[in-house]
Amino acid sequence: MVRVGIYGATGYTGFELIKLLVRHPEVELVFATARSDAGKQLCDIFPTMLQTPLVAVEQADLAAVDLVFTCLPHNAPELVPLVQQALAAGKRVIDFSDTFRLRDPDDYERRRGWPHPSPELLAIAVYGLPELHRAQIRQAHLVANTGCYPLTAIVPLWPLVQADLFADTTVIVDSKSGISGAGRALALKTHFGETHETFSAYNIGRTHRHLGEMEQETGLHIIFSPHLLPVYRGILSTIYINLKPETTLEQARAAYGCYRDEPFLRLLPAGQLPELRLVQQSMYLAMGIQPVAGDPGRFIIVSALDNLLKGASGQAVQSMNIMFGLDETLGLG
Amino acid sequence: MVRVGIYGATGYTGFELIKLLVRHPEVELVFATARSDAGKQLCDIFPTMLQTPLVAVEQADLAAVDLVFTCLPHNAPELVPLVQQALAAGKRVIDFSDTFRLRDPDDYERRRGWPHPSPELLAIAVYGLPELHRAQIRQAHLVANTGCYPLTAIVPLWPLVQADLFADTTVIVDSKSGISGAGRALALKTHFGETHETFSAYNIGRTHRHLGEMEQETGLHIIFSPHLLPVYRGILSTIYINLKPETTLEQARAAYGCYRDEPFLRLLPAGQLPELRLVQQSMYLAMGIQPVAGDPGRFIIVSALDNLLKGASGQAVQSMNIMFGLDETLGLG
Amino acid sequence: MVRVGIYGATGYTGFELIKLLVRHPEVELVFATARSDAGKQLCDIFPTMLQTPLVAVEQADLAAVDLVFTCLPHNAPELVPLVQQALAAGKRVIDFSDTFRLRDPDDYERRRGWPHPSPELLAIAVYGLPELHRAQIRQAHLVANTGCYPLTAIVPLWPLVQADLFADTTVIVDSKSGISGAGRALALKTHFGETHETFSAYNIGRTHRHLGEMEQETGLHIIFSPHLLPVYRGILSTIYINLKPETTLEQARAAYGCYRDEPFLRLLPAGQLPELRLVQQSMYLAMGIQPVAGDPGRFIIVSALDNLLKGASGQAVQSMNIMFGLDETLGLG
Amino acid sequence: MVRVGIYGATGYTGFELIKLLVRHPEVELVFATARSDAGKQLCDIFPTMLQTPLVAVEQADLAAVDLVFTCLPHNAPELVPLVQQALAAGKRVIDFSDTFRLRDPDDYERRRGWPHPSPELLAIAVYGLPELHRAQIRQAHLVANTGCYPLTAIVPLWPLVQADLFADTTVIVDSKSGISGAGRALALKTHFGETHETFSAYNIGRTHRHLGEMEQETGLHIIFSPHLLPVYRGILSTIYINLKPETTLEQARAAYGCYRDEPFLRLLPAGQLPELRLVQQSMYLAMGIQPVAGDPGRFIIVSALDNLLKGASGQAVQSMNIMFGLDETLGLG
Repeated sequence: MVRVGIYGATGYTGFELIKLLVRHPEVELVFATARSDAGKQLCDIFPTMLQTPLVAVEQADLAAVDLVFTCLPHNAPELVPLVQQALAAGKRVIDFSDTFRLRDPDDYERRRGWPHPSPELLAIAVYGLPELHRAQIRQAHLVANTGCYPLTAIVPLWPLVQADLFADTTVIVDSKSGISGAGRALALKTHFGETHETFSAYNIGRTHRHLGEMEQETGLHIIFSPHLLPVYRGILSTIYINLKPETTLEQARAAYGCYRDEPFLRLLPAGQLPELRLVQQSMYLAMGIQPVAGDPGRFIIVSALDNLLKGASGQAVQSMNIMFGLDETLGLG
Repeated sequence: MVRVGIYGATGYTGFELIKLLVRHPEVELVFATARSDAGKQLCDIFPTMLQTPLVAVEQADLAAVDLVFTCLPHNAPELVPLVQQALAAGKRVIDFSDTFRLRDPDDYERRRGWPHPSPELLAIAVYGLPELHRAQIRQAHLVANTGCYPLTAIVPLWPLVQADLFADTTVIVDSKSGISGAGRALALKTHFGETHETFSAYNIGRTHRHLGEMEQETGLHIIFSPHLLPVYRGILSTIYINLKPETTLEQARAAYGCYRDEPFLRLLPAGQLPELRLVQQSMYLAMGIQPVAGDPGRFIIVSALDNLLKGASGQAVQSMNIMFGLDETLGLG
Repeated sequence: MVRVGIYGATGYTGFELIKLLVRHPEVELVFATARSDAGKQLCDIFPTMLQTPLVAVEQADLAAVDLVFTCLPHNAPELVPLVQQALAAGKRVIDFSDTFRLRDPDDYERRRGWPHPSPELLAIAVYGLPELHRAQIRQAHLVANTGCYPLTAIVPLWPLVQADLFADTTVIVDSKSGISGAGRALALKTHFGETHETFSAYNIGRTHRHLGEMEQETGLHIIFSPHLLPVYRGILSTIYINLKPETTLEQARAAYGCYRDEPFLRLLPAGQLPELRLVQQSMYLAMGIQPVAGDPGRFIIVSALDNLLKGASGQAVQSMNIMFGLDETLGLG
Repeated sequence: MVRVGIYGATGYTGFELIKLLVRHPEVELVFATARSDAGKQLCDIFPTMLQTPLVAVEQADLAAVDLVFTCLPHNAPELVPLVQQALAAGKRVIDFSDTFRLRDPDDYERRRGWPHPSPELLAIAVYGLPELHRAQIRQAHLVANTGCYPLTAIVPLWPLVQADLFADTTVIVDSKSGISGAGRALALKTHFGETHETFSAYNIGRTHRHLGEMEQETGLHIIFSPHLLPVYRGILSTIYINLKPETTLEQARAAYGCYRDEPFLRLLPAGQLPELRLVQQSMYLAMGIQPVAGDPGRFIIVSALDNLLKGASGQAVQSMNIMFGLDETLGLG
């Protein structure tokens, strides 16, 4: 049994993570922390029958676990100290924030505008994308769980990069996300009255904070436009690429052979595109690719995943399974 | 031209009110106040092209208006002073809160648990339901705009009371409201993730704070169960009543003859029930009544309105039209 | 392994049933039939990765199964012949329609207006509500799977009837259902443009075809008002009852002790009411009961379930587990 | 008074058109036809209080009108004969289908794969985009009302073409439409259960039937990806363009000066992008344009409109106002 703890269990990813861990046959959930809700049970704050107790960080018994998940907001001041403390105690860590996702501290500084708070952790962190970095995740002490938007771009673009098919390395990623991606913190942008029955773009171009991951993992130059959908879960990205003019659909599809044995990645049959319903409540990342008729080399990819599962909490459990030598799909069925 | 001002323009009812007043041919909107958004324009906070400036309360030129609308939260501490100040300045007031809706200060104290803050205002306030109190509204200096839930019960029940048809004066009102009724203040209960794709009951039985209005206006004993619908606007109430056993559908329907000339009330043809779409974005309150087959005297009423228009801002404009001798439907088409 | 077949797999309940059976550790799905979609796979018509083949009824190998689920529309002409054929072949049947739910053929004829098409089947059918009829289900050859609306009334009312707490046996059940309850057949009433952002009542009073089940199982006289919610799955019912005036909340809650060991029924702690999110995607039927302050004997119950799981396909699997001596919760976690 | 008739009043655009015409101060609605619903009133099929009678085509008194609106499905066999009949009778016609939108019969044949059914009508038809073809619309006997998707691309792209700012004439238009755009005909793709809480792409690349209009009016080469949003009304398009590398945001914005006096077109202030709520229930087409930081010449445009008003029925009324010398905004406020 892997004994785990969660720091920050009262966000949407924390809630999904608990639901996965409680059913996981090889996991014992030792603690789950909350700030203002410490002392309550999970069922007091979420619609669930689960009575998982929520404790203050000070009550969390770090010594009793093998691994901690840190599910804190990106900018929580306690994040880096908690990670350092856990690593110092010999525990392994899977972090949900974007703090440790960029390998290069200079890249971090250039993109954010300030130096990385703990470059020594960056040096040991592994980007938690099993399909690209499985071997390193197995050994990792610190895994930087992937961003949900980036995954919808990296997974379908990476094989085409590997196959050296790009004619133009500038790529347009037009993404549409359900509102759970914006988190559970109170804000007008997640108020029902401001999000229901509407649709909007935000942080378009090259301004979204998770652009860096996409470019780091693919080596491409990416124009990224996120949009907010009036649905709860799921991201669908429509990706516009220019491959070498002679590239056939068969060649493009063949590049995805590298994912042949991946349990959670699916290239749909030619002519099919995923929709959100196909992947909601599942670990699948589904992709379709189509040529633009009459425009040699131009293709459109549509990819989709559940941002809370493959895009966050399920992805973390997949990494945990790898780190502890378990069947990679355990508890994720 | 009626010159009007709005105290508290940044809630959903304030926004709807501005949209109505700006198009109203006989109204000049002199000021609209905001607290944290003072200095901005309406289009900075709502999805609109309207550039109505928002000023701090201190900047509002009370002397320049004939009437003020107070659209503040029910418990705003500045509410009563602002109403008193406006009345003292000889201005007329239409208040959106539930502060002045109960005529009897003892009733207020019994229901709320504390004495009324300004019983002298209660003495002059008129309950702003034009179809029942048109003559008093015409003369009123202080109109207490009706609650949205209460209207769906009072309007269909009152004619049956007038016609002395009730066998049992206990009535069950099962109401379902869109989320705009919960206001624009940030709260988990209005977070998209907590309200979308779900449905819930709250404050059921005899605990909702607007039960008093319903009982005051109808003289009935009401069991009231509000529910929250995942839609933006509209309330539909299903009402269970026991009339005298010999009452026919025709007799029950005949009681609604009193509304014959009302521009905004509609008894649907026998066999029809309103749905929310019928009344959304309109001033109509629509009603249907059906007998329960085989249960003499038992009837079910379904009523529906747009909580932001007939249930709030439109209702206030209707009262304003009456107060200033205008065509009652002006600006409400 | 229980070998099963499904007649009628292309409705929403059929789809949910396949998803449950495919993951069930003790079930082998031998066939699933479709009419116009025969020859396709499940993934051709539903958003799923499941490639379950769909065959014409004529291709279904009845001899190879132990049990068939009949998931056909209530009035499908092939339904009774298929049930008769399966029973004649010594197979057990769980039927999803409302054909076999009333025990008394006279009751059926009185309520429907025509005689039952196969009263000899009615004589052997068992109403598939495990919590009330577990022993008979175990032996049954023909189980009439419960209606989704009726379950939300029967389960919370039955213990109070058993405890002889009713003062007035007339009960009001105000129900609100997600749209999946209306099925997948094309109709304006399920068109997105006619159901989204609205809410409506239909078949209110004593006219809904599933009123009979509720009254048969509880012995109460029920006023039933169904409504259509703009959500996909889930039913919430608000139930108004008059118990003996001296009944305390504790006594009413104590009546639910009979459900103490039921894996899927949950009486929530005093003061809590279920919302749809609590039960969606789960087998739980959750209930809350509250007294009406100041009205002795008057209580309000709120109950909720997932109409496709506990209200349909999951319920059928629970019955199947009982019929074949399996752990009742197997495959339903 | 302009006397008008509608052929095909029972789709979503027909319903919106009637609502506009009934309130229009200078219009008399003489007839509205329906096929299966002939003999009913508008309120029998839509949620409205309007009692507009619906007549069979044969009952429509063509002689009594000045103008007919043809709101029939794109492929209705009666469409061309009705248009020919009306023109022959000296009536003017505004057609909602895509039959007369392409000026060049060869272009039509190349894009559709079959010859145009009535090239002589194509020769006289005017593309009904007032902001580009106002003078021709004024004289036109046959106006081809614009497509809703095309408008979101043509309006924001045309000024940049006029200003000769494009470096690359291939443009990517990623569009997201509410479901009313798919019409009221029954189909699984508009079933609530198949569209709610999901999101999907369809006909991507260069396959959508309204691509031709966009290219005809702009002269650009367009990659167009439509998507289906789970909202009722509104289209938002995200458009990726490559202008000459030295183009500044100010220069790009200056190009929109040509729309300065247009009552319904709005370029938002720099830094702002429209969302659907801004334009729903209105005649506005709103646009924002932003440069991609660090990528000279690359810009992203976001445009939005209400597909039933500026995108269909309101647009037709605007053209009608022009054709009959009325104030262009009459009845559209």
